[in-house]
Amino acid sequence: MPEYCCFQDLFAMTDIHDLTRRLQKPADSKIVLYVADGLGGLPLLPGGKTELETANTPNLDALAQRGVLGMSIPVLPGIAPGSGPGHLGLFGYDPLKYDIGRGVLEALGIDFALTDRDVAVRGNFVTVDAGGNISDRRAGRVSSEIAEKLCKKLDTISIPGVEVFVCHVKEYRLVIVIRGEGLGGNVNDTDPQRTGVPPLKPQGSDPASQKTAEILTEFMRQAAEILKNDQPANLLTMRGIAKMPPIPRFQDVYGTRAAAIAVYPMYRGLARLVDMDILDAGHSLEDQMKCLEENWSRYDFFFIHFKYTDSTGEDGNFEAKVKRTEEYDSGIPHIMALKPDVLIVTGDHSTPAKMKSHSGHPVPTMLVADNCRFDGSRQFGESACRVGELGMFEAKYLMLQALAHAGRLEKYGA
Amino acid sequence: MPEYCCFQDLFAMTDIHDLTRRLQKPADSKIVLYVADGLGGLPLLPGGKTELETANTPNLDALAQRGVLGMSIPVLPGIAPGSGPGHLGLFGYDPLKYDIGRGVLEALGIDFALTDRDVAVRGNFVTVDAGGNISDRRAGRVSSEIAEKLCKKLDTISIPGVEVFVCHVKEYRLVIVIRGEGLGGNVNDTDPQRTGVPPLKPQGSDPASQKTAEILTEFMRQAAEILKNDQPANLLTMRGIAKMPPIPRFQDVYGTRAAAIAVYPMYRGLARLVDMDILDAGHSLEDQMKCLEENWSRYDFFFIHFKYTDSTGEDGNFEAKVKRTEEYDSGIPHIMALKPDVLIVTGDHSTPAKMKSHSGHPVPTMLVADNCRFDGSRQFGESACRVGELGMFEAKYLMLQALAHAGRLEKYGA
Repeated sequence: MPEYCCFQDLFAMTDIHDLTRRLQKPADSKIVLYVADGLGGLPLLPGGKTELETANTPNLDALAQRGVLGMSIPVLPGIAPGSGPGHLGLFGYDPLKYDIGRGVLEALGIDFALTDRDVAVRGNFVTVDAGGNISDRRAGRVSSEIAEKLCKKLDTISIPGVEVFVCHVKEYRLVIVIRGEGLGGNVNDTDPQRTGVPPLKPQGSDPASQKTAEILTEFMRQAAEILKNDQPANLLTMRGIAKMPPIPRFQDVYGTRAAAIAVYPMYRGLARLVDMDILDAGHSLEDQMKCLEENWSRYDFFFIHFKYTDSTGEDGNFEAKVKRTEEYDSGIPHIMALKPDVLIVTGDHSTPAKMKSHSGHPVPTMLVADNCRFDGSRQFGESACRVGELGMFEAKYLMLQALAHAGRLEKYGA
Repeated sequence: MPEYCCFQDLFAMTDIHDLTRRLQKPADSKIVLYVADGLGGLPLLPGGKTELETANTPNLDALAQRGVLGMSIPVLPGIAPGSGPGHLGLFGYDPLKYDIGRGVLEALGIDFALTDRDVAVRGNFVTVDAGGNISDRRAGRVSSEIAEKLCKKLDTISIPGVEVFVCHVKEYRLVIVIRGEGLGGNVNDTDPQRTGVPPLKPQGSDPASQKTAEILTEFMRQAAEILKNDQPANLLTMRGIAKMPPIPRFQDVYGTRAAAIAVYPMYRGLARLVDMDILDAGHSLEDQMKCLEENWSRYDFFFIHFKYTDSTGEDGNFEAKVKRTEEYDSGIPHIMALKPDVLIVTGDHSTPAKMKSHSGHPVPTMLVADNCRFDGSRQFGESACRVGELGMFEAKYLMLQALAHAGRLEKYGA
């Protein structure tokens, strides 16, 4: 019977980035990762077509004839990822290794430029009664207009030895960032998840986190004073207290200069997490394509994010997802006009309209490059991807394929 | 948010059960895992059909049109598993992590309810000559009738501080269980694997196992006295000395109430190992289906085991395996009448009649649920499974698919 000690060493053996650091090779080639959020779908009935297969996608279909298709597993079979793990996988970072806390994601989602000295916290405005017990966990769904003003008041809180940032997100939601030396992120949520009781006290599970807990306790003391006359938002609770994980830089592990072109802040934040440059993506796919053209000479790797295949899926609107997929398809000629050496078309996860949520189904994926082993596909869709040359693979390996097809990896071993 | 020290322990991080403990979500859904032992087969000649493809399986074929197909790799590609690792994989337990000792499997195989205080030993009756050297390693293939009586005599052995159980298995084979505190399972086999020498002395490789070795030495001393006039079975050797591995409970890791409906004791034992409830399965597939119906409301997860696809394969009887596959198919309408949310049809390994043994070929697998990405399969068989939506996957991931399709997993990350 094997001893388990040997498994402790497994990671060092199989870390993708140990391999790419070692094998990376300079090249002039350019890679485009064109992500349709929530791309994968489901047929509504047996024998039917998915959203992607229903959509009229002449550009994607033409590419399918000169590329290779496959199915990406975002995390593990069946596991539906959030946007964070979904994108980290596509960037080649094992989403089970780099587990991004809720507070960090919330900060990324409002374009807050976190540093590794920061602890990020997701805050909720709440109502407390005269006895200090929570009577409404969302402060009567206070308006964004009011909550924004309250955040500005809270942003004046000052605590010796650290910087404090308070930013409004939406309605009753806010982000608190504490910046300082030696702060830990292992602090409990103060949201008791029910009414009739006061918020919990923050406590750290190690000395660095205990320091954070003390600062958050002082923050809460001052916040209570500041908000005391602001019913229904006369206090706040804290959740998802977290630090950014130490995550290797994209350029270091792959040797590419990378840029992100994303309209939504969450995806800019995820790209910033791996230290991509964030370009001004504007507000539409057209803006994004213009941005790509303008910056083409400055980078080797472009991450372009298209949101609406996910949001229409979440809405359960099959037809709208079909339309948005057609819009996504319309971006292809702009990209191909720039002659990328490698184009990857994929999603961070599936969002079937039928399920109105992210799902664990594998994600249709296409890689187009001159040295593809063309697989005879005629159309880009789930059915074709199922039997394509890329096979079914964990998303974290996709970057290896991108680099390999871009001539950016040395041979492994002699 | 986890601290990064834990990443050094990759195994713990990516253990499927760490994930399912964290993501499990209550639901009313029901899952049926319907296992045909040794289901996978081989065509006898190139271009031919496997046993499953030859069988007339209208019910399985109808399901193939409303489910997804794939190929399960029981352990690693090419590795033929025994029943233990084969089933542990299907239950979602990494068969390379949970290595079940031979003695434990032998005890499970006779329905012995092992506890975590037990050391289980597989015994063989042997013949020793006047000099104490083994002259026959199977005691002249002593009859079950005689061996059973000898086991009853051995069962009277008493050793201070522990309980001793001796149970007959079949012919020259028996099981010895030592129950007590602080016993280790790392003790060598005493079977020298040849004749002309005495049995080896048991020795433990750590203090707890040394304690076990001392108890087994005393057991052997008393056994020699008891059996001295029982030629040809006048002594025994011991093999596969092992403790039950500490294995997490099915309900804890998945949040389902699980029951096993298995006619053969080995499979009940394997289900008991992960703490499923063991139901009275009767003696036939019909009995099993009745048991399923009667207990339908009491559990969320049912493991139903059908043995004969394996035993006919082991016999090398292609036609008999075809017939047994048809019998297995006949169980489907009974299951579907109960409207399970997820039905999984698979095997624990392949047992091709052509090879008369377990083999490492991947195992045809089907998952049927409303939110399947239907893959257009028309028939359940190896050829269709090869290009199905589930792809080729390690068996240990099948439970993730089952839970995901049953709406029993939260999203991973935000």
